[in-house]
Amino acid sequence: MPAFTPHRVHFGGDYNPEQWPEEVWAEDVRLMKEAGVTMVTAGIFSWARAEPRPGEWDFGWFDRVMGNLADAGVEVCLATMTASPPPWLSHRHPEILPVTAEGRLLHPGSRQHYCPSSPVYRAHAVRLVERLAARYADHPALSMWHVGNEYGCHTRQCYCDVSADDFRRWLRERYGTVDALNEAWSTAFWSQAYSGFEEVLPPRAAPTFPNPAQQLDFHRFSSDALLACHLAERVVLGRVTPGVPVTTNFMPHHKPVDQFAWAAHEDVVSLDFYQDPHDPETHLGAALAFDLMRSAGRGAPWMLLEQAPSAVNWRPRNGPKPPGAMRLWSWQAVAQGADAVLYFQWRQSRGGAEKFHSAMVPHGGTGTRVFREVAALGRELASVPQLAGSRVAPPGTALVQDWNSWWALELDSHPSTALSHTERFLAHHRPLFEANVPCDVVPPDRELSGYRLVIVPSLYLLSEETAARLTAYVRDGGHLLVSFFSGIVDDCDRVHLGGYPAPLREVLGLTVEEFWPLAEGATVTVRGGTGREKGPIREARGDLWSEAVRLEGAEAVARFDGGELDGVPAVTRHGYGEGVAWYVGTRLEALATRALLDTVREGAGVGPVLPGLPDGVQATVREADDGTRFLFLLNHGTAPARAALPRPMRDLLKPGGTAEAHVTLPPRGVAVLT
Amino acid sequence: MPAFTPHRVHFGGDYNPEQWPEEVWAEDVRLMKEAGVTMVTAGIFSWARAEPRPGEWDFGWFDRVMGNLADAGVEVCLATMTASPPPWLSHRHPEILPVTAEGRLLHPGSRQHYCPSSPVYRAHAVRLVERLAARYADHPALSMWHVGNEYGCHTRQCYCDVSADDFRRWLRERYGTVDALNEAWSTAFWSQAYSGFEEVLPPRAAPTFPNPAQQLDFHRFSSDALLACHLAERVVLGRVTPGVPVTTNFMPHHKPVDQFAWAAHEDVVSLDFYQDPHDPETHLGAALAFDLMRSAGRGAPWMLLEQAPSAVNWRPRNGPKPPGAMRLWSWQAVAQGADAVLYFQWRQSRGGAEKFHSAMVPHGGTGTRVFREVAALGRELASVPQLAGSRVAPPGTALVQDWNSWWALELDSHPSTALSHTERFLAHHRPLFEANVPCDVVPPDRELSGYRLVIVPSLYLLSEETAARLTAYVRDGGHLLVSFFSGIVDDCDRVHLGGYPAPLREVLGLTVEEFWPLAEGATVTVRGGTGREKGPIREARGDLWSEAVRLEGAEAVARFDGGELDGVPAVTRHGYGEGVAWYVGTRLEALATRALLDTVREGAGVGPVLPGLPDGVQATVREADDGTRFLFLLNHGTAPARAALPRPMRDLLKPGGTAEAHVTLPPRGVAVLT
Amino acid sequence: MPAFTPHRVHFGGDYNPEQWPEEVWAEDVRLMKEAGVTMVTAGIFSWARAEPRPGEWDFGWFDRVMGNLADAGVEVCLATMTASPPPWLSHRHPEILPVTAEGRLLHPGSRQHYCPSSPVYRAHAVRLVERLAARYADHPALSMWHVGNEYGCHTRQCYCDVSADDFRRWLRERYGTVDALNEAWSTAFWSQAYSGFEEVLPPRAAPTFPNPAQQLDFHRFSSDALLACHLAERVVLGRVTPGVPVTTNFMPHHKPVDQFAWAAHEDVVSLDFYQDPHDPETHLGAALAFDLMRSAGRGAPWMLLEQAPSAVNWRPRNGPKPPGAMRLWSWQAVAQGADAVLYFQWRQSRGGAEKFHSAMVPHGGTGTRVFREVAALGRELASVPQLAGSRVAPPGTALVQDWNSWWALELDSHPSTALSHTERFLAHHRPLFEANVPCDVVPPDRELSGYRLVIVPSLYLLSEETAARLTAYVRDGGHLLVSFFSGIVDDCDRVHLGGYPAPLREVLGLTVEEFWPLAEGATVTVRGGTGREKGPIREARGDLWSEAVRLEGAEAVARFDGGELDGVPAVTRHGYGEGVAWYVGTRLEALATRALLDTVREGAGVGPVLPGLPDGVQATVREADDGTRFLFLLNHGTAPARAALPRPMRDLLKPGGTAEAHVTLPPRGVAVLT
Repeated sequence: MPAFTPHRVHFGGDYNPEQWPEEVWAEDVRLMKEAGVTMVTAGIFSWARAEPRPGEWDFGWFDRVMGNLADAGVEVCLATMTASPPPWLSHRHPEILPVTAEGRLLHPGSRQHYCPSSPVYRAHAVRLVERLAARYADHPALSMWHVGNEYGCHTRQCYCDVSADDFRRWLRERYGTVDALNEAWSTAFWSQAYSGFEEVLPPRAAPTFPNPAQQLDFHRFSSDALLACHLAERVVLGRVTPGVPVTTNFMPHHKPVDQFAWAAHEDVVSLDFYQDPHDPETHLGAALAFDLMRSAGRGAPWMLLEQAPSAVNWRPRNGPKPPGAMRLWSWQAVAQGADAVLYFQWRQSRGGAEKFHSAMVPHGGTGTRVFREVAALGRELASVPQLAGSRVAPPGTALVQDWNSWWALELDSHPSTALSHTERFLAHHRPLFEANVPCDVVPPDRELSGYRLVIVPSLYLLSEETAARLTAYVRDGGHLLVSFFSGIVDDCDRVHLGGYPAPLREVLGLTVEEFWPLAEGATVTVRGGTGREKGPIREARGDLWSEAVRLEGAEAVARFDGGELDGVPAVTRHGYGEGVAWYVGTRLEALATRALLDTVREGAGVGPVLPGLPDGVQATVREADDGTRFLFLLNHGTAPARAALPRPMRDLLKPGGTAEAHVTLPPRGVAVLT
Repeated sequence: MPAFTPHRVHFGGDYNPEQWPEEVWAEDVRLMKEAGVTMVTAGIFSWARAEPRPGEWDFGWFDRVMGNLADAGVEVCLATMTASPPPWLSHRHPEILPVTAEGRLLHPGSRQHYCPSSPVYRAHAVRLVERLAARYADHPALSMWHVGNEYGCHTRQCYCDVSADDFRRWLRERYGTVDALNEAWSTAFWSQAYSGFEEVLPPRAAPTFPNPAQQLDFHRFSSDALLACHLAERVVLGRVTPGVPVTTNFMPHHKPVDQFAWAAHEDVVSLDFYQDPHDPETHLGAALAFDLMRSAGRGAPWMLLEQAPSAVNWRPRNGPKPPGAMRLWSWQAVAQGADAVLYFQWRQSRGGAEKFHSAMVPHGGTGTRVFREVAALGRELASVPQLAGSRVAPPGTALVQDWNSWWALELDSHPSTALSHTERFLAHHRPLFEANVPCDVVPPDRELSGYRLVIVPSLYLLSEETAARLTAYVRDGGHLLVSFFSGIVDDCDRVHLGGYPAPLREVLGLTVEEFWPLAEGATVTVRGGTGREKGPIREARGDLWSEAVRLEGAEAVARFDGGELDGVPAVTRHGYGEGVAWYVGTRLEALATRALLDTVREGAGVGPVLPGLPDGVQATVREADDGTRFLFLLNHGTAPARAALPRPMRDLLKPGGTAEAHVTLPPRGVAVLT
Repeated sequence: MPAFTPHRVHFGGDYNPEQWPEEVWAEDVRLMKEAGVTMVTAGIFSWARAEPRPGEWDFGWFDRVMGNLADAGVEVCLATMTASPPPWLSHRHPEILPVTAEGRLLHPGSRQHYCPSSPVYRAHAVRLVERLAARYADHPALSMWHVGNEYGCHTRQCYCDVSADDFRRWLRERYGTVDALNEAWSTAFWSQAYSGFEEVLPPRAAPTFPNPAQQLDFHRFSSDALLACHLAERVVLGRVTPGVPVTTNFMPHHKPVDQFAWAAHEDVVSLDFYQDPHDPETHLGAALAFDLMRSAGRGAPWMLLEQAPSAVNWRPRNGPKPPGAMRLWSWQAVAQGADAVLYFQWRQSRGGAEKFHSAMVPHGGTGTRVFREVAALGRELASVPQLAGSRVAPPGTALVQDWNSWWALELDSHPSTALSHTERFLAHHRPLFEANVPCDVVPPDRELSGYRLVIVPSLYLLSEETAARLTAYVRDGGHLLVSFFSGIVDDCDRVHLGGYPAPLREVLGLTVEEFWPLAEGATVTVRGGTGREKGPIREARGDLWSEAVRLEGAEAVARFDGGELDGVPAVTRHGYGEGVAWYVGTRLEALATRALLDTVREGAGVGPVLPGLPDGVQATVREADDGTRFLFLLNHGTAPARAALPRPMRDLLKPGGTAEAHVTLPPRGVAVLT
């Protein structure tokens, strides 16, 4: 498997020269040098230009683009050009168009207008990739492959007849017999038993809730259908250019694609992340997504393959990144393990749907704040080549995430449809981030023994095998925190019988007798124990959820106070084997979650990267092969922040500076200390 | 017509053994006995199991189920199994699938995925019922038939081409000639005159408001199309098992099905009612629905065929029933005339769309609060067999309800689209309920002479015949209260010309010159008269609606104060013949409506079941054939309530207790006194 | 071109006798005389009655209607009857039905259910118009033609295959070659290049944002497709009845139809306007719409072809017009240049979708407030025949409006999708209206030299030619005010490169370096200069938008205070040539906009019609050919208003009154002074 081993943190962006006359290209290369660009991603939307009519190829212009870049020493992450089929393809083959659950046909005119299961689309895509790989296999500019683009961004699932056929094929492979499918899908309910696979359909719009297991499997199938598109191209590249690393750009908090499953096929994991400058907590979402990327790649450096130099254009209201924000958020990616900082896109489009998306070279040209900040970051990254290849120091804490559980958690017909997988993960990641406690985000089958603390936030779908591994993890001395509505169903969305959460009852030392979801806007009071029971929570509010917990070995750390559940345990602690298992039965407000997690991780012996930091300062450590440790400090707050260092250290971003025992970061300030 | 004459109030629930392996069935029967179950409803969703492939029958398993139940002495309300067609039927006959007004096809995967007009569906359903009836006609467990299930719950109306054909047939039968249809539908407006029936369509999505009479007739047709499905099965049962009573489960506040028209075909009327524990007024909606059920059955005992033991799963957030609530609300049904208290369902499903719907036997088994409360209620009902067959004492008050008017009232293109039929009925029923004044809910053609007070809340569609009957009712001494926007249109949604509400002007003694609907959030002040005019209202707020009333014999009891209608009558009273007619021209706030109705019914000589009860206590009386009167007291409040009884009485639910002159009910407490 | 030269201001309404039995018609004519009716619009929805079956004509009944009206001296504005095709047409030709962008077919049952591009619809419409024109060409009642009705009211755009074909034809005509289309649509973006016209589709529902230039052209095409329907009929009328003026009724603030382009084809411009009595600012929207109508007709008298006598029926909640409001708002139209005040409709329908729309003769008959107010206005208008033919005195101010820019401004994928064209225009028109400064609303190609002040509110799409004309206008001494997001793109929605707003930078003396749209609910503070810079604004709030302006010759009149843009110019002034150009970079609150515009127009030497008027009083002047000036004063406020007149004047609406130097208007009062 070819490795991604850059000599420095890459810097650059998507390059779409086909939008501009050839005379602009020379300026492009000149400005790239000025901006410190080392890598561009080219060709993402070039299919219609490269194959203007079926089987008619035009690569001459692209040869010149590649030549220019090679001459300038800019590496190319070459796209396979298959993200947006040209109009002629859907015109000749309208059967490639996707269809929604409501039966609405999605037409060409934007992008990603293909059914992922379409053999016609796949065949044309592969034919193009064959040509492309053969032509540029030995080109000096070729550095990496970028397959497809943002899989599942718009067309998350397709419900057309072609997809239906492919879904049936997938089900046959999964279940073998229709009896097994009937069993897995609980079709005895509502008279849904199939007499043959040919009767099965995607969960199209129905009079009321479609079968949940059918919906769950359709999520799985849809991720796999996109993956099959990806692999069809990837196989060609692996054959034709075996030494060139391959990636595709994942999206953050992105439900359609099981990124743990996909990451196994990537030589390097990549992410697109678009902060919302109108959201003061946008860096928190980034922090979680970055940790997930790094963990998906098992700790190896990853690529920030797209971000905006400033504003985007696709939210209802698109604020620009204020001065310093783009630099701060770029360094956040590096601090959390990225070895590439790229943008969408190099030059701002004059027309089309993204002309108001910021670019490295804005409409207003180089005499703009945006270009100045881009070029400054380019220079800055060039000054610290030693960062490349270093890895984030292995965290002692892990959050367990599972796309299967995500899909199942957010199905309809639940005790409460207000539960959001992403909200639940952010709520548990945030107190770690704020405390500067590094953490991984791992799939349920990842080895856990290396972690001191494992957190399981509302992992609704949990196999007995995983539950057994979590139980053993605690028995052997691990610390575990589980929050409500975890361990409820098996892989087929069938309830684990015997009292919720049946497979975790032993390790948690309790049973949940009844779910007690709260009405919109309703809250409960949670009060901590007194005397011996005195724990991390004095009094806190919960909302969204409560439940009737019955202790079976665990002790109550806090209880509901008032209401129908007055006196019922809300937070519990269970010493089990060598370890400890905690449980939380409501959605605690943020401060209480922070206090609880501080207590839990202190018990687990998990500390921050650097203690005593002011609020809003993020700290991470990357370690180089030679043992050098780089301490990153980032000030996400609005006030200057002064931090005491463990020893006098030098800020690599201040060339010529001396080692100091303290560092003061202005708002949006960054230091890389060693 | 076979009668429903249980020897005690039935207790039990839906039983779906096909969801469980056969070894569980023995436990089922054992636990049913433990829980005091006397009746189960079986087979509702068994079609796919009973006919796994077209024409291939498998009743052996069901024979064993029926045998087990017979052996245990549990009566079976046997479902006709037609509620959810098996996948093979829609696979072979996709033309049975329903289509929405927007042209969206509804697919299998949930339930009720059939076009009610489909001859294919009906033929397959009838074929199944023939088999079923023949097989179990003489089975000792067979006690009743349950035809279909919750007709119109999800598929309320179908707009497909099959339905269009059937709609045209229905119209030909109704109107005879296309000229008559043109006249009835006022097609001279907007150039809509048809030259032949073949041009007529359902009111599918159109550029703007479809013809209102077309919409109204489509509501009628759709109720009739569902009824035709029902009757196609019912006819078979009446022929094969003439002595077995037949029912189907109505839904509360359910617009698609004209329950008065349907009730004529039922041997006993049944209702499903699912309280929302998050709604502190959920018992008020139940009270209205229960009164309607009893009235639809002309006072005979009815069946609560489904309720939840605790939480449901289909609202966005589903709270459980807190301790005592299920018992209280079950007794409320009995207090209002039910002779059966059944649940959905016996054993909580492990998979499928309703696995989080509570059941008599929860996922957690019998060691749960829910099972304990269920079994306790089972024992309690067993202790009072004498209640069965008694009837609610005939009320002196009636609310007039008409599905035709409901359909018409909520059409588009009205003075205000914010009028809700159900809200209007709840607003008029609530002050009676709170005052413990029993009332019936009757169709417009019901004989009224037995009532002292008749209430007509916003009965927009009112025929001249009904208006004449109401007029005669008052002339002969009746008391009548009419609220705004009543008597506006005829059966074809054509305005009664000559000043609103033309056919009621004489009895009300007024004309409404203009409607004056209020903007969202706007209110009007209503002020009562002074001196001689001094009436029930001092000062009150109205919203939603106001209007310009011109007195023509009536006197103003309250007038609008301020605004454009300053001084215009808002509430009027008209002595007419031997009776009195009241009119209300705005939506009064609840307290004012209560004060007004108290005055009106006092004038009519209609009093409460028991005077002087604390707020929140419901009182009803059932009378047995032998003259025994049972006084039910139910505390819907959150505080203990002490009630003075008319004489020392004994609480049947406290065996061994002595007769007392007072009873104190805890919150959610119930007493059955005699 | 035949002229519209009424001898007095016309009064009347839509007349739909086909809804009533013939015996009502005699009463109609009698009541028309009583109400002072001089003109009716007849036949709008008579197609199904006139051609009950294909090619079978029935005009006899309409002959009698026309005869009755002629006998009574009522002029007929004869509709072409094509607004709503009869059921037989769509039954035989379902391909005429329109389809939405989502692929939803719109069915008959309401009105306007035709694809504007349908050759079948057009052929049938033209055949009908030929018949109609030939039959009534010489009828004494025929006064005008009313072609179609409210084009684009419901079916704004059609996306069916017929429309797709017509769109391609339109594109071929516009662009000639597919290369030119690719260039214009920027199809290099997202791989959208077409290899032939046959691949092009309407912007149907797609996975994400469809190509913006495609969307923009589809707006243009759709307006043109409706216009083609209109012209197909108009051509017949011009041939058969060359001397009869032709009109069609425009709708206010109506995006689908480019009224400037259409007005060129009308002999007189007409408007339907339905005030919302629940909206206290409804007269402001009317004022803008009326100014636009007059300007579209280049100052000639226009017709208020429809208004409601009182309530409408198509809003969610429809308040009636309180006493005096209908008179006031009718006079507002006349004051702003109308020579006809007509209603929808003469007699209130008994059935159909608009039976609750008020009419001149209500359901309650003539003994109603509505009829009394209608008849009173009829008498009043009859008393001032000298108003007819007079024209509003030419304004010194113009707002520049462009349907192309409207369509482009509200496309998706913009910096902020919260910008509304209509809101922006209302916000700039209101301060002129409140100051009684008359203004025109003109297209970008209108000659500007006659104006002292030109206002350009957020004219996003602006050609270089228009920009050059605006620049020359200022250079030659004009005063110009431009608000943010103007001059951004060309006719193909391609950004003008070189710094925003490139083609206006010279005249404005500035560059906008970055857009800085605000989050929902967020505001900015704007503070005026001190000392020499002291301008119209001290401190004001802005919302929705801000931006980073860089001065290049202009001076800052106010700056952002605080936030990321602290100190950046928010309002600028640029002396350029002989004139002045102002720029506004945020959405100022109303008071600040008023203060700014007062300053700007004082600088431009533009004053009010009459100074010193109380708030809420509208003043306009119409001038007759003989030099007589009519001063209209209308009190839109809720309190009496006393106005000082420039000299003693006589109120024409108070016959017998004497000339006075002051006039006092009650709330909703009107005076016509001379």
